[in-house]
Amino acid sequence: MHEPLPPGSVIGILGGGQLGRMLSVAAARLGYKTAIFEPGSDCPASHVANFHMRAEYEDEAALRNFAESVDVITYEFENVPTSALDILDLLCPIRPGREALRISQDRIIEKDFLSGLGLQVAPYRAVNSENDLRVAVDEIGAPAILKTCRFGYDGKGQARLSSPDDIAQAWAIMKGAPSVMEGFVSFSHEVSVIAARGLDGSVAAFDPGENVHEGGILRRTTVPATLTATERADSVLLAANILNALDYVGVLGVELFVTRQGLIVNEIAPRVHNSGHWTQQGCAVDQFEQHIRAITGWPLGDGTRHADVMMENLIGDDVTRLPDLAKEQGVAIHLYGKADVKPGRKMGHVNRITG
Amino acid sequence: MHEPLPPGSVIGILGGGQLGRMLSVAAARLGYKTAIFEPGSDCPASHVANFHMRAEYEDEAALRNFAESVDVITYEFENVPTSALDILDLLCPIRPGREALRISQDRIIEKDFLSGLGLQVAPYRAVNSENDLRVAVDEIGAPAILKTCRFGYDGKGQARLSSPDDIAQAWAIMKGAPSVMEGFVSFSHEVSVIAARGLDGSVAAFDPGENVHEGGILRRTTVPATLTATERADSVLLAANILNALDYVGVLGVELFVTRQGLIVNEIAPRVHNSGHWTQQGCAVDQFEQHIRAITGWPLGDGTRHADVMMENLIGDDVTRLPDLAKEQGVAIHLYGKADVKPGRKMGHVNRITG
Repeated sequence: MHEPLPPGSVIGILGGGQLGRMLSVAAARLGYKTAIFEPGSDCPASHVANFHMRAEYEDEAALRNFAESVDVITYEFENVPTSALDILDLLCPIRPGREALRISQDRIIEKDFLSGLGLQVAPYRAVNSENDLRVAVDEIGAPAILKTCRFGYDGKGQARLSSPDDIAQAWAIMKGAPSVMEGFVSFSHEVSVIAARGLDGSVAAFDPGENVHEGGILRRTTVPATLTATERADSVLLAANILNALDYVGVLGVELFVTRQGLIVNEIAPRVHNSGHWTQQGCAVDQFEQHIRAITGWPLGDGTRHADVMMENLIGDDVTRLPDLAKEQGVAIHLYGKADVKPGRKMGHVNRITG
Repeated sequence: MHEPLPPGSVIGILGGGQLGRMLSVAAARLGYKTAIFEPGSDCPASHVANFHMRAEYEDEAALRNFAESVDVITYEFENVPTSALDILDLLCPIRPGREALRISQDRIIEKDFLSGLGLQVAPYRAVNSENDLRVAVDEIGAPAILKTCRFGYDGKGQARLSSPDDIAQAWAIMKGAPSVMEGFVSFSHEVSVIAARGLDGSVAAFDPGENVHEGGILRRTTVPATLTATERADSVLLAANILNALDYVGVLGVELFVTRQGLIVNEIAPRVHNSGHWTQQGCAVDQFEQHIRAITGWPLGDGTRHADVMMENLIGDDVTRLPDLAKEQGVAIHLYGKADVKPGRKMGHVNRITG
């Protein structure tokens, strides 16, 4: 058995965005302090954390200093540079572990890993040249989608191919980066499972949520999702399968396409996930606390859903709707403290209790 | 109409305890930053606030500096020295206003105020000498309770009188401080109403909670409380009456005795209140956010109760029960980040969702 980190311990979080912000609040609720590592000034997480180390990921002294001043390290984004992890790793436990990052940092490694577990993924081909892309379109067909293997998020680093005519243009968008072409999947809708695995190996999953994207960005998540009993069970088992295979510690997000051929894994994220924000209003223990519990050695908490919830992101000037949202019944508002409103920028979200 | 304080504004909070901590988190959720004024180091609120001004309430330069760096000032305890308020007041709005503090800082002024509104309070007499106390016991009878007029909380500065024989001993406990003797009220139970009034004068109240004290400290609050429909309506109207009379802005706690003669006001607190912590799990908008909404000019939020909740304080070594509580179904844990466990010290609370 693991003894949990004692109260007053410091949790280091790599990344200072809204996920780090909500992780910090959850950590405080369990009596922990937080330290944020983030190059940007006045970042969302710094407003609610004890410490903000403002430094670049190339700053080795800062990394060492950070790792020595915290008791465990976690992260709010998967693209943490390997060189930084190499330094931190020697001084402090990183949870979830390196293997989860290695796999989720590269779309091809991730798809190979998932296929290797016997899970369904969309047909895919590695693409390192325009010619590779031409061969891939030949083999898999169009429509298809081309994505950089690394550093893509919220629809960035992606290009759609409606027909072979789009090959040159799509490849140009990748700017020569190693890429992956994915065949189009005919799915009725997308769901995601937010699951957790504790230091003791126990696994828990929140009720799957149904996601709607617009322009490559998550627009809303609704629970309960439209799923058969079998699909619901499959989705949770599949998440547990991934967690165990990675000897994972923490919360993991799994995006799934619901198809006539069963559930197809779109992608995994080794962190708390936007589609799990509904848990703040729907469960006694939300995804942020579940993550903190896991990485600090607490038992996983009760994530039973006790309400129907619709989470909606406030993107860009959606925030101008706040005066109306503030008066609505059953609406919980969560703003991220970002100073400037920009198109496509996640400024906050609302959780609507619908039943 | 008032425009709400713009996002990114700074809310100054006097006092760095758990109430300031939970107010800070609520402020962050609405996109605000917080600054804590608190003489103690490493205080609970500082862990989740942007700034911590560590200074004494006698430090005029620090007070001025603080007031100039924030956009509105609120407080988490009612015993803010008047001299400090005089300095802050000139530089920054204080909400709730001075009148609420003047009244709640002195038990006799408070009781005079409540009686003046036509509300029932326990029989009381001002006591400034052992002889005053003798006269009071003569007029009101024993058992009774003697309290210092100012600076009492959690059962401190109080003495019970079972009979006239206790007069000398009870007066000695007051150490010469101006005091008030209250006649014993025969009540079936205690409830409290957490109510709010916005900058626009609108009023909202949470469902009353039923309180159980042990050793002068709140042990637990249960919602829904045992109340008839009439008592429930009376309790809310009475709270609204107090809020309006004070031209109040923010959240107010009203403790009430439930008796055969109707509701008797025990005391009021011009701030968020321990007996309102259940709202964190029971409502879309909890008491902390409701307070922040009120003082920043937002519309009051939806405080409808959507669950039955039992809040229990974790006092002193109650925290040793955490390993078991952490595994319980429907339990949400809230720790305050206090470094040392002391008898009688509020270390945290749990909200149990019971239905």
